[in-house]
Amino acid sequence: MELLHGNAIVGQSGGPTTAINATLAGVISGAMNADCIDKVYGMRNGIDGLLADRVVLLNELFTERADFERLKRTPAAALGSCRKKLPKEEDKDYEATFERIIEIFKKYDIRYFFYIGGNDSMDTVAKLSKYTTECGYEVRVIGVPKTIDNDLLGTDHTPGFGSAAKYISVTMQELLRDTAVYTVKAVTVVEIMGRDAGWLTASSELGRVLGLPSPDLVYLPERDFNMDEFFEDLSAALEKKPNIVVAVSEGLRMADGTFVGESAQSGAVDAFGHKYLSGTGKALELAIKEKLGCKVRSIELNLSQRCAAHIASKCDIEESFGVGSAAVSAAVQGVSREMMVILRDNDPGEPYSSVYGHMDIDLIANKTKFVPKHFINERGNHVTDECLNYILPLIKGECYPEYKDGLPVFATI
Amino acid sequence: MELLHGNAIVGQSGGPTTAINATLAGVISGAMNADCIDKVYGMRNGIDGLLADRVVLLNELFTERADFERLKRTPAAALGSCRKKLPKEEDKDYEATFERIIEIFKKYDIRYFFYIGGNDSMDTVAKLSKYTTECGYEVRVIGVPKTIDNDLLGTDHTPGFGSAAKYISVTMQELLRDTAVYTVKAVTVVEIMGRDAGWLTASSELGRVLGLPSPDLVYLPERDFNMDEFFEDLSAALEKKPNIVVAVSEGLRMADGTFVGESAQSGAVDAFGHKYLSGTGKALELAIKEKLGCKVRSIELNLSQRCAAHIASKCDIEESFGVGSAAVSAAVQGVSREMMVILRDNDPGEPYSSVYGHMDIDLIANKTKFVPKHFINERGNHVTDECLNYILPLIKGECYPEYKDGLPVFATI
Repeated sequence: MELLHGNAIVGQSGGPTTAINATLAGVISGAMNADCIDKVYGMRNGIDGLLADRVVLLNELFTERADFERLKRTPAAALGSCRKKLPKEEDKDYEATFERIIEIFKKYDIRYFFYIGGNDSMDTVAKLSKYTTECGYEVRVIGVPKTIDNDLLGTDHTPGFGSAAKYISVTMQELLRDTAVYTVKAVTVVEIMGRDAGWLTASSELGRVLGLPSPDLVYLPERDFNMDEFFEDLSAALEKKPNIVVAVSEGLRMADGTFVGESAQSGAVDAFGHKYLSGTGKALELAIKEKLGCKVRSIELNLSQRCAAHIASKCDIEESFGVGSAAVSAAVQGVSREMMVILRDNDPGEPYSSVYGHMDIDLIANKTKFVPKHFINERGNHVTDECLNYILPLIKGECYPEYKDGLPVFATI
Repeated sequence: MELLHGNAIVGQSGGPTTAINATLAGVISGAMNADCIDKVYGMRNGIDGLLADRVVLLNELFTERADFERLKRTPAAALGSCRKKLPKEEDKDYEATFERIIEIFKKYDIRYFFYIGGNDSMDTVAKLSKYTTECGYEVRVIGVPKTIDNDLLGTDHTPGFGSAAKYISVTMQELLRDTAVYTVKAVTVVEIMGRDAGWLTASSELGRVLGLPSPDLVYLPERDFNMDEFFEDLSAALEKKPNIVVAVSEGLRMADGTFVGESAQSGAVDAFGHKYLSGTGKALELAIKEKLGCKVRSIELNLSQRCAAHIASKCDIEESFGVGSAAVSAAVQGVSREMMVILRDNDPGEPYSSVYGHMDIDLIANKTKFVPKHFINERGNHVTDECLNYILPLIKGECYPEYKDGLPVFATI
């Protein structure tokens, strides 16, 4: 195979994660080590910045190993992100947009294009590689996945998921301690990210397979939520002990498709006549207060799920770096229009190990990997041991940022 | 001075903190090392459990240094907590309650009583020491402070505050990264605990004195909140950059005394006709959406502020242990009816150091230490460098729990 000589460019897109910069560090490191790649550029704010020629030369910023280590432990997208989707062939700005990209590519002699992102970003990779192939501009285009939601097909799990799952499961251990100190009857509802897939909510139960405390009830969006069954479960739990903790996905829906948050708020308007959209946890808090009259609190774990670098998973950070670096190796070897994947390499029961691979983007883009049926118990109020044993290795190890005077020191590009 | 021989008992009361078990470890360790103290008991759920004779012998549970280290890094009250206040002299259950306590004291030969808690717990200490003195039962009664709110008088700062401030300031660094990745106009409102005093909200700005990112606007409950001025400040901030982060205390009030949350929700009812009490952050989110129409998100940091042991302050954990141990020394030396305090020992500009002391409980109980005027800027939308330099040493150092298979291992009593 002939080597393709030239420069590389890397961008980040979609929602931030704790591990997305580890992948960026992996791509930069891999590209700097590749003989056929000379310069490594970064696009600011993804494809948006590329179109505006907001491009930064990265080589000079990463001269020492410590620079990579700092970037690995820095949350959110250090190059900035965007939510832009490239136009389709039938869109009127199609030609102009892609011509502009080729113009920028030529300006910087870009022959390797790495895009770190979720589903929408894989769409960018697919469209760009199609266009460049058709117009005869030689460039290898690779997608590197990231999403805390773990809902991409083709990969055993997604970079970023492990750290989010670690934040959630560690925080859950602490919340279970905090909520257990009193003897009065009280329910705590913890709302966890996940509009469609319940992987993050499932991770809140990890303590159980380690013999540690775990939430009393766990509800995923893969199952229709039934309010009557929920109150049966809750009452049964309150018979046994005074403090109950319930973990719920933000995306919980009733059988008729309405979100739990939505339905419980149908009549709610504020002083200006606006509907309150307070979310699943708040809706359940109000419903429980109404029905049981006991102390209730709802907690939304919120953005920390995607940026809590202070309690990142070592497994996740190392793999996120590794898959970035592997993306460069694959591209150098001729791979293009593919998404990198992580494959679990061990037999069940053996110590966890993984390898990196790549897959045709068209098999992956715009699809969702749900928590499978057999990972959820029959009653739909817990996940199974099999599910937890699948997640457990992904939260192993702690990867702490460097601290100075009490606060973390993050990388800036 | 004659030595008082006998046993000790320790209890925890009020809301949990990350450091309250470090103080418990300090008391147990101190008592086990005191020659005049034989056995060390713990009361479960504070004075509530004492009255029910729910008492546990602690000596045997702490045989190794590792046992203390684990307890120090365990959040929330390991002995359980309560919110009980002891009756006043005019209450009809007064005699019966205190006689019952003396009965339990006699049963276990209790001569040292340590109560770890906030303001209400100091009330318990005051009443108990008064009764025992009057009835002639010899016991030394000492209060050891804990509160994340830092609002107790007499002490330079409260055990538990440093870890809460660290959680908040570290999380703020991460949120500032997360919210900065896009180029679209967006406001993020972060609601921080503190009904009356703004110490925790102030700590969200710590990054500023270290040259790190910090919130664009910071509002404390010590100042009346003015919605017009807020929108002036917010609009000015949005002129300069697209992503604005605002830190607010949950206790923000208007000039007329109504909570910001309350006032903005006056017309809001849910499907059952209940008023929504969504809090200050949510209320401001709705107001901003209404007025500016831009992307807005509110984040409530919630219970993690008082239990995030995974990012505790080393300074706080060590001092919380130290003040517990010092309480025993003081009691052995004859001190009673006092609350332990932490005194800052350095001149301004010199490296931080502290010593432990004690103060008459009556000077402290039922009073609140507010953030002083000169710690808040004139406009009331930031805290001063002096304020931040006061807080900064209290978040220094990281104290991590022990992890096994990815999750923290906490102590159980």
